[in-house]
Amino acid sequence: MDRVKEMSDDHPEWQTEQPFKALLEGDVKTALAGGEEALLEIIMSSHSGMTTKEFEQTVKDWINSARHPKTGKLYKEMVYQPMLEVLNYLRENGFKTFIVSGGGIDFMRPWTEEVYGIPPDQLVGSSGKVKFEFIDGQPVLLKLPEINFIDDKEGKPVGIHQFIGKKPIAAFGNSDGDLAMLQWTAGGEGKQLMVYIHHTDTEREWAYDRESHIGKLDKGLDEAHEKGWTVVDMKNDWKVIYP
Amino acid sequence: MDRVKEMSDDHPEWQTEQPFKALLEGDVKTALAGGEEALLEIIMSSHSGMTTKEFEQTVKDWINSARHPKTGKLYKEMVYQPMLEVLNYLRENGFKTFIVSGGGIDFMRPWTEEVYGIPPDQLVGSSGKVKFEFIDGQPVLLKLPEINFIDDKEGKPVGIHQFIGKKPIAAFGNSDGDLAMLQWTAGGEGKQLMVYIHHTDTEREWAYDRESHIGKLDKGLDEAHEKGWTVVDMKNDWKVIYP
Repeated sequence: MDRVKEMSDDHPEWQTEQPFKALLEGDVKTALAGGEEALLEIIMSSHSGMTTKEFEQTVKDWINSARHPKTGKLYKEMVYQPMLEVLNYLRENGFKTFIVSGGGIDFMRPWTEEVYGIPPDQLVGSSGKVKFEFIDGQPVLLKLPEINFIDDKEGKPVGIHQFIGKKPIAAFGNSDGDLAMLQWTAGGEGKQLMVYIHHTDTEREWAYDRESHIGKLDKGLDEAHEKGWTVVDMKNDWKVIYP
Repeated sequence: MDRVKEMSDDHPEWQTEQPFKALLEGDVKTALAGGEEALLEIIMSSHSGMTTKEFEQTVKDWINSARHPKTGKLYKEMVYQPMLEVLNYLRENGFKTFIVSGGGIDFMRPWTEEVYGIPPDQLVGSSGKVKFEFIDGQPVLLKLPEINFIDDKEGKPVGIHQFIGKKPIAAFGNSDGDLAMLQWTAGGEGKQLMVYIHHTDTEREWAYDRESHIGKLDKGLDEAHEKGWTVVDMKNDWKVIYP
């Protein structure tokens, strides 16, 4: 949203075109009614033409300054203490940890190492196409307004295969977008751990599941119960949410 | 070639269609006249419809049995001792090492850890599209006859960005397909090392550069000399070639 506002002077058409119109009016609900795909569209069109280096700097500036309107925290502080603990626990026991997110990989990379202890090459995420070019004699990668890969739903096992090349032993998700990843993990040999984090805490965080446009958790919840996967109830199971 | 021969009974059209006809007749020169792209076509069509797991097993069987007709060595033994040493040296000094190859990533993964000490998630390579499906209730990834990504030439910096997310400090190549990767590396901040391995040894290995269909090294050699990158002359600089 911040980026769309910054750029809106150069895009008069956004005053009338959705989802940009709604975003500029601060009407988040309408802007996000199209779900994750509409969100990706916004991200693509608001960042094409930048080099990957410029984009990285934009993300760094934003992540180190933007605060959530409700919690007043930096967004990068709104991560889950129990998840940081499980990541540390797994790493201390010889696991290699990865993030496999529907989010943009170039958006996550500038801060996941600091926040999660996960380096840039251990990320799988959605991405736009980029093009190698020389600008003023300098090699750059230019972001194109074209989707390269959507790391969501059936795309998650595909992304895991293409980026990591091994099947996970443990996988943690919080939405139907993670279901195929958990199914893929469950299909492995030996023992596996499949966990759904269920957002159930309206006071300390948010509560949403079957009806949500973003982060919908419906089929996943049914399958978790049916298959006996672990479902974490944030409200009742987590003593601490944010670090 | 071995795979195409194995499958040829089910593909009578290969008796007349190039490059398959030439491959089946053992005419490698004609079969490879189309360069790396023709090679990828062969790989795609001879492996689509397999699951990634079946493909992995095929590669393991092959890599542990197939020998090079000239050297009599297993193909996985035909790696370069000096490169193994430089990989170890870099890792002992805190570098994380990756393979960035025009070769198929699914072809490399089953053996690169054993041979190079590089795990499956530290590989960037060419790939075909795969699709997540259930077959007999089991989740599988099915190889489709469609190219996903060609990790060659301008694709190499793109692949490095998408899979690794950081710019290399040192990069080693042996063909024009590596030139953009070396240019991308050279454009980084701080100190960099760009190295071309020049195949110059007709006796212990092979000698080829400007005129070769596969592994052509022409523009790269010029740019290396012009920019002062390191060029290794295999014949004169390497005491040992194979381990």
